[in-house]
Amino acid sequence: VIIGGGFGGYEAAHRLKKADVDVTVVDRKNHHLFQPLIYQVAAGALSEGDVAAPVRAMLKRQPNASVLMAEVTDIDVTRRQVVLDRGERLDYDSLIVACGGATSYFGHDEWRDVTCGLKTLEDALDLRSRIFGAFEEAERAPDPAARDEWLTFVVVGGGPTGVEISGQLAILSRQALKRDFRRIDPRTARVILLDAGERVVAAFTEPTSARAAKELSDLGVTVREHAMVTDIDAHGVSVKVGDQTERIATHTVVWAAGVRAAEVAGILARASGAGTDRAGRIEVNPDLTLPAHHEISVIGDAAKLDGPDGRPLPGLATVAIQEARHVADAIRHGGAGASTPFKYFDKGALAVVGRGRAVCEVRGRRLYGLPAFLMYCGVHLFYLGGVGGRRLTVLITTIGSLFGARENRVMPGELEAVDRNALSTPLTGS
Amino acid sequence: VIIGGGFGGYEAAHRLKKADVDVTVVDRKNHHLFQPLIYQVAAGALSEGDVAAPVRAMLKRQPNASVLMAEVTDIDVTRRQVVLDRGERLDYDSLIVACGGATSYFGHDEWRDVTCGLKTLEDALDLRSRIFGAFEEAERAPDPAARDEWLTFVVVGGGPTGVEISGQLAILSRQALKRDFRRIDPRTARVILLDAGERVVAAFTEPTSARAAKELSDLGVTVREHAMVTDIDAHGVSVKVGDQTERIATHTVVWAAGVRAAEVAGILARASGAGTDRAGRIEVNPDLTLPAHHEISVIGDAAKLDGPDGRPLPGLATVAIQEARHVADAIRHGGAGASTPFKYFDKGALAVVGRGRAVCEVRGRRLYGLPAFLMYCGVHLFYLGGVGGRRLTVLITTIGSLFGARENRVMPGELEAVDRNALSTPLTGS
Repeated sequence: VIIGGGFGGYEAAHRLKKADVDVTVVDRKNHHLFQPLIYQVAAGALSEGDVAAPVRAMLKRQPNASVLMAEVTDIDVTRRQVVLDRGERLDYDSLIVACGGATSYFGHDEWRDVTCGLKTLEDALDLRSRIFGAFEEAERAPDPAARDEWLTFVVVGGGPTGVEISGQLAILSRQALKRDFRRIDPRTARVILLDAGERVVAAFTEPTSARAAKELSDLGVTVREHAMVTDIDAHGVSVKVGDQTERIATHTVVWAAGVRAAEVAGILARASGAGTDRAGRIEVNPDLTLPAHHEISVIGDAAKLDGPDGRPLPGLATVAIQEARHVADAIRHGGAGASTPFKYFDKGALAVVGRGRAVCEVRGRRLYGLPAFLMYCGVHLFYLGGVGGRRLTVLITTIGSLFGARENRVMPGELEAVDRNALSTPLTGS
Repeated sequence: VIIGGGFGGYEAAHRLKKADVDVTVVDRKNHHLFQPLIYQVAAGALSEGDVAAPVRAMLKRQPNASVLMAEVTDIDVTRRQVVLDRGERLDYDSLIVACGGATSYFGHDEWRDVTCGLKTLEDALDLRSRIFGAFEEAERAPDPAARDEWLTFVVVGGGPTGVEISGQLAILSRQALKRDFRRIDPRTARVILLDAGERVVAAFTEPTSARAAKELSDLGVTVREHAMVTDIDAHGVSVKVGDQTERIATHTVVWAAGVRAAEVAGILARASGAGTDRAGRIEVNPDLTLPAHHEISVIGDAAKLDGPDGRPLPGLATVAIQEARHVADAIRHGGAGASTPFKYFDKGALAVVGRGRAVCEVRGRRLYGLPAFLMYCGVHLFYLGGVGGRRLTVLITTIGSLFGARENRVMPGELEAVDRNALSTPLTGS
């Protein structure tokens, strides 16, 4: 049984194609999501179908794999069964937990209701409605103050996701929408990226962070480092910079600051007694199995494993995929889980700032600007293309979107869904 | 002021591009919808962005046109003002009401909660989640009876929409999904098209209806004419055929039976004293203006006007577009509305049953099968291509979808949203 149909879960299932095993993939969603590009869905550059495909369709030509769209409610480690939301029980010989991550609000769960995360497809579609809704509201605003609030976009968190969405917001307001309105000038929109740390994309080296910040500024993003968010409500964000607290009036806050392991990791920890770190990730043996249960492996964002440098492995698709292969190969050779330590092969890191603007570091070498952007395109197309035979279409659409040819700015709903009052009520999932 | 950004509203605005007037288009939604293809969105063959484009983007290069995303709450015919949901008032010299149609349940509004309509983009996305959710539920079903209920799809209404979606459902279950499941065989799914009248697509001649019914049967659809729906709830549909009442157990009912004028037509009728027919459509002069208000014109699905044969003009995009041109041309020449009677130029009617299968009637000539299907493609691509400069991409995607190359079977949400219990609670908009 594999819990999760994301990068890790799908790769593990796929890798077991020719093994003499029965594979069941359980996922709450019906789709595998290409998460690195969902910010493009939020910005209206891609459709949801461009970044997601049904796990079921991806595994249709693998006869030993079946897929269940269901929620895991418990794991019975003694009887070796996964319990689903309607009481069904799935027996397993080996269990791979690849449940991925979820958004963390660092204890401020009330912020969930007044911000948009950027982890799921619903997040992206909700953010899209909020972004385009904000411009619509600004066009209708009764006075300049109200207009400016709607034209202010705050992104919290300067990691790759925060950098990508703020760059995209700047491009949207300064380029894509510039002719669309009559009462407002979208180019006056403010995009503010708040990062509590010393520099954006801190996983990169200092010169790369500086370059990313410069590219963002060139696009029109106000980058504010050392900016600690102390409060968020439906009308704005309070920020502490040094000793000063400041208020930014806005209705649109993107939360790209925190990641924790998804709920299933907590279920596993309770059921098996495994340890977790502060972000809820399961502490695993170097071979990715649980200390007390060799037949249970945890991979991807749900696993806490340190790299050779002593720092935890980053939450990247490539880590999850390599871990999936490590575990699946051991199972293919008859084990219940891996017995040799997992070794991460560092393929480098990439972040895109805007069309033709990206930063990239591979094994100590830095690449900026158009070359890095083309590398980004290449890597993403390579992975996207590998997913379930949708190669050609996806290639065409994605190239199109990255170069700005295609747009999807459709809001299925009406403005009520994104207006001021709605912001103070909890968001519904779909 | 133009109320509505659909076929009629957009065409009227566009036609006034070079006129010495200021045009304001008001729409609750941010998008113009290519309604004839939304059944493809429901069936997972197209993305929402393929059949919709922001009205704002379509009019961006027309400096005399502005767009407001707002709801009309009143029309003050004395002061010549349109009142919006936040109390704003828009002055007009001429008002074009092109608010379109909405789904009618013939007095059974409780059926709204247990069926899916197919008029709006939300309808289509909701139906998509229900269709794919039903297959997921069937795969998880605890017994054969439950499985069969989930694998039964009922379409109510044998007009072009009903014919198109039932054909598409048959193709989906028999072809697209045939390898995707392990516990169920999607090819055993039943697609039942219920029509209360004598024959499907009754606007066509009898041989054409018979041909459409035959094509549907060939695809695997059970076509039942003279079948009157008497009750619908979350567990099934009651049908009266002759003197016999029968029960079909299903969780997925598509309502494609009734159309009425959208709400704004009612507002206009109350405000102006104009007469309406049973479907809420406004009775207009032969020149499309209101009897008491020459400066107010009603076009498209909201207008009731009889053709030369004494029958009301059909609710087709081509009617709305021709009416829009008639009214806009009069305004362009200095009138407040048209003064000459509108004459409908009949371009024929088309309905598609499945890939390569369609029926078509143009001025008494009938065309069936592949030729009709190619004509259907041609006509749709022509219209779609004309919308807002998205020509090439749309051409490619649409050709792809019609020939089956592209698929979007993504359900953004989780299964809860489509399960049995949820069916008895009201559906939320987005």
